[in-house]
Amino acid sequence: MNVDRDKQLKEFAVEQHGYYRGKIEVTPKCWVQNLEDFSVWYTPGVAAVCNKIVEDKDKVFDLTLRWNTIAVVSDGTRVLGLGNIGPEAALPVMEGKALIFKYLGGVDAIPICLNTTSEDKIVEIVKILEPSFGGINLEDIESPKCFSVLDRLKQGLTIPVWHDDQQGTATVVCAGLINALKITNKKMNEVRIAMIGTGAANYCVERLITTAGVDERKVIMVDSKGILNTLREDLRRSSSYKWQLCLKTNSEGREGGIAEALEGADVCIAMSRPGPGIIKKEWIKAMNDKAIVFSCANPVPEIWPSEAVEGGAYVVATARSDFPNQLNNSLVFPGTFRGALDARSKGISDGMCLASANEIAKMAEEKGISPNYIVPTMDEWEVYPREAAAVAHQASVEGLARRRLSKDEELENAHKIILTSRRKLDKLKEAGLIPRRQ
Amino acid sequence: MNVDRDKQLKEFAVEQHGYYRGKIEVTPKCWVQNLEDFSVWYTPGVAAVCNKIVEDKDKVFDLTLRWNTIAVVSDGTRVLGLGNIGPEAALPVMEGKALIFKYLGGVDAIPICLNTTSEDKIVEIVKILEPSFGGINLEDIESPKCFSVLDRLKQGLTIPVWHDDQQGTATVVCAGLINALKITNKKMNEVRIAMIGTGAANYCVERLITTAGVDERKVIMVDSKGILNTLREDLRRSSSYKWQLCLKTNSEGREGGIAEALEGADVCIAMSRPGPGIIKKEWIKAMNDKAIVFSCANPVPEIWPSEAVEGGAYVVATARSDFPNQLNNSLVFPGTFRGALDARSKGISDGMCLASANEIAKMAEEKGISPNYIVPTMDEWEVYPREAAAVAHQASVEGLARRRLSKDEELENAHKIILTSRRKLDKLKEAGLIPRRQ
Repeated sequence: MNVDRDKQLKEFAVEQHGYYRGKIEVTPKCWVQNLEDFSVWYTPGVAAVCNKIVEDKDKVFDLTLRWNTIAVVSDGTRVLGLGNIGPEAALPVMEGKALIFKYLGGVDAIPICLNTTSEDKIVEIVKILEPSFGGINLEDIESPKCFSVLDRLKQGLTIPVWHDDQQGTATVVCAGLINALKITNKKMNEVRIAMIGTGAANYCVERLITTAGVDERKVIMVDSKGILNTLREDLRRSSSYKWQLCLKTNSEGREGGIAEALEGADVCIAMSRPGPGIIKKEWIKAMNDKAIVFSCANPVPEIWPSEAVEGGAYVVATARSDFPNQLNNSLVFPGTFRGALDARSKGISDGMCLASANEIAKMAEEKGISPNYIVPTMDEWEVYPREAAAVAHQASVEGLARRRLSKDEELENAHKIILTSRRKLDKLKEAGLIPRRQ
Repeated sequence: MNVDRDKQLKEFAVEQHGYYRGKIEVTPKCWVQNLEDFSVWYTPGVAAVCNKIVEDKDKVFDLTLRWNTIAVVSDGTRVLGLGNIGPEAALPVMEGKALIFKYLGGVDAIPICLNTTSEDKIVEIVKILEPSFGGINLEDIESPKCFSVLDRLKQGLTIPVWHDDQQGTATVVCAGLINALKITNKKMNEVRIAMIGTGAANYCVERLITTAGVDERKVIMVDSKGILNTLREDLRRSSSYKWQLCLKTNSEGREGGIAEALEGADVCIAMSRPGPGIIKKEWIKAMNDKAIVFSCANPVPEIWPSEAVEGGAYVVATARSDFPNQLNNSLVFPGTFRGALDARSKGISDGMCLASANEIAKMAEEKGISPNYIVPTMDEWEVYPREAAAVAHQASVEGLARRRLSKDEELENAHKIILTSRRKLDKLKEAGLIPRRQ
């Protein structure tokens, strides 16, 4: 990374944020011509709308913003690579997320940064906020708390709950893996996979790729202390989810560190800490032929793509936009939520994540996959309505949808919603009402 | 009220709400041309913005949406005239409120309906939500809980908290009273005032008009059991705020009901329950000459204006738009919050409410007051920036403002913000992106 460019970007970002003072705002979406309209939108007319919802609570999804509105909830404990920076400092990130939700998915998202880090409080508060929202996107909450927060909320709420650092990441990795395997003629149920890092992301990646057909026994996971195996006395005592992984993965009982994990592996999925140098070129050389290397640390991957290729990697992906094959959650959450909201789904299952992953992979395949193109880029925006349709359909199949739409209907619907939000932005820019700041 | 028209309005309101499925939405307000912009608005650029806020928490007001974003919080326990209808059914009202906040005040308001009615929980949750918001508008929370919720939050938060059913109503009533007294040549500190109803609204009206100069001893308040006085054994035991009123008002120790309260009164401020017939024409006749009657029950006033005039009232006001002198909170909250937010005030004091009331009264006076025009109408929208300037100035005077603006600066600033939000709406309507539904 160029230090000057990096510094320049930082200064530019601060300057731009200071100029606009907010990236999103609330705007009317109904017709308001004069004050008489408020007798419809507010008292006395609105009372009839309230009464409809008193009669049937579900009508709130037909008569208010709720059907399309989600909360982006964070406690600020694990923000980007910055760590526990607190709720105020997390707000620009959650607001940015909300911006992307709207721009790519047509979803109205409200940033909510909580002044608590207690697991119980986070769960309680989200439950109390439920009546105003159609879905919950958890974001940048530290692990292992994030696992139990997600599980408890999935149990406790009747709307979709999603932790983007888990399911979003897992879905895009899964999409990339599907196509990388096609290119390299490897089979999902045969490959040996080394996973570097056992945080929220890889925890969920492991589960999702297993659901997709990977043989869990052939997965080898590495945390900061080495390979997970049943000899790990430190894990037997501590964090239970890691111990479960010790029991389920690595049936050969391999020991060691990253180097040992990569030996003979077909795939490396790294979600650990910023590189370079976390993964060495020599270790890539010890992988199988046509090695697949996903090196996803932010802002600098565990190994530079050029090094990975020198080490013999055939397909390389990172989380960054300046290299080919960007595995970025933003490819997933806008479309997946679009579909879940439109189906009025009770949740977002792993099956729905997988449907999303398959659709992402399919679209890239239709366009022609290659070692440098395993997933669409974020600006191939047809991907979002396609995901939405796949996700909504899967919600129907699994009996989670309260509203059944055919794939075609949902495709058209999602397309229209996303396009409308784009057009509104374009119109306001054209009119100079969103000024360009150079 | 015409029954057919009423029925028609109800049906129309439900139909319109079903068509738009939400009255507000989230939209980008920064420049987004393509995905490269997200490297500024989201990772990696946003990290520098987070770090600025880590260094100085207050920077969150300069670099995010927080400076202009408030939560409209309700537990759904006392919604309009509908009572305790729950959080889902309250949502259309809170969303309508948010629409008005934006349209009239340029304020970004988020409807938050809570799945709890516990006073402690409401207080706790709002405190935990604080980092995302620049202000809190409490709405439609039952009394007496609303008093303690407001007091505890005013103590506990560093941003403005406001209960519109209290301060909003009190401010507009106070503005109306100021001009009604001018027209009738009565003096604030001399008038005898009968207040019908002792709920959240009149509780706060009583305090604010006293602050404005009314002699509290000459106020007589009536609840559903009669006039408040120190003989009221039922109150000595129960609700403490009413007992305080017994001690402070009605120094002559008058007993009886509404009729007795109105005898010899100069002003009647009724905020009780829907009429007509709650206040009788004969009782108005027993008031002093040039009687002032504010009959504000919704949807039907305690006495029809025509009857009040027949009874000898000289100035009559209601809460309704179809009679002259509409005393409506909407005249207050958009401008008052605009000013409090722009001054980045730590709270909204009674002094700031009074500044707002005086400015509303002043504007009507400049235009020429008469028995049928004591306050501006909601479509005389210059009133909002004027209020904002008065409120921001008062926040400075009281040492509550974190940002000091001159009255002129704030007037221009508020004017620009409100105008921009109007223009955006107009542009989207013109472009057909907010379609008109007949």
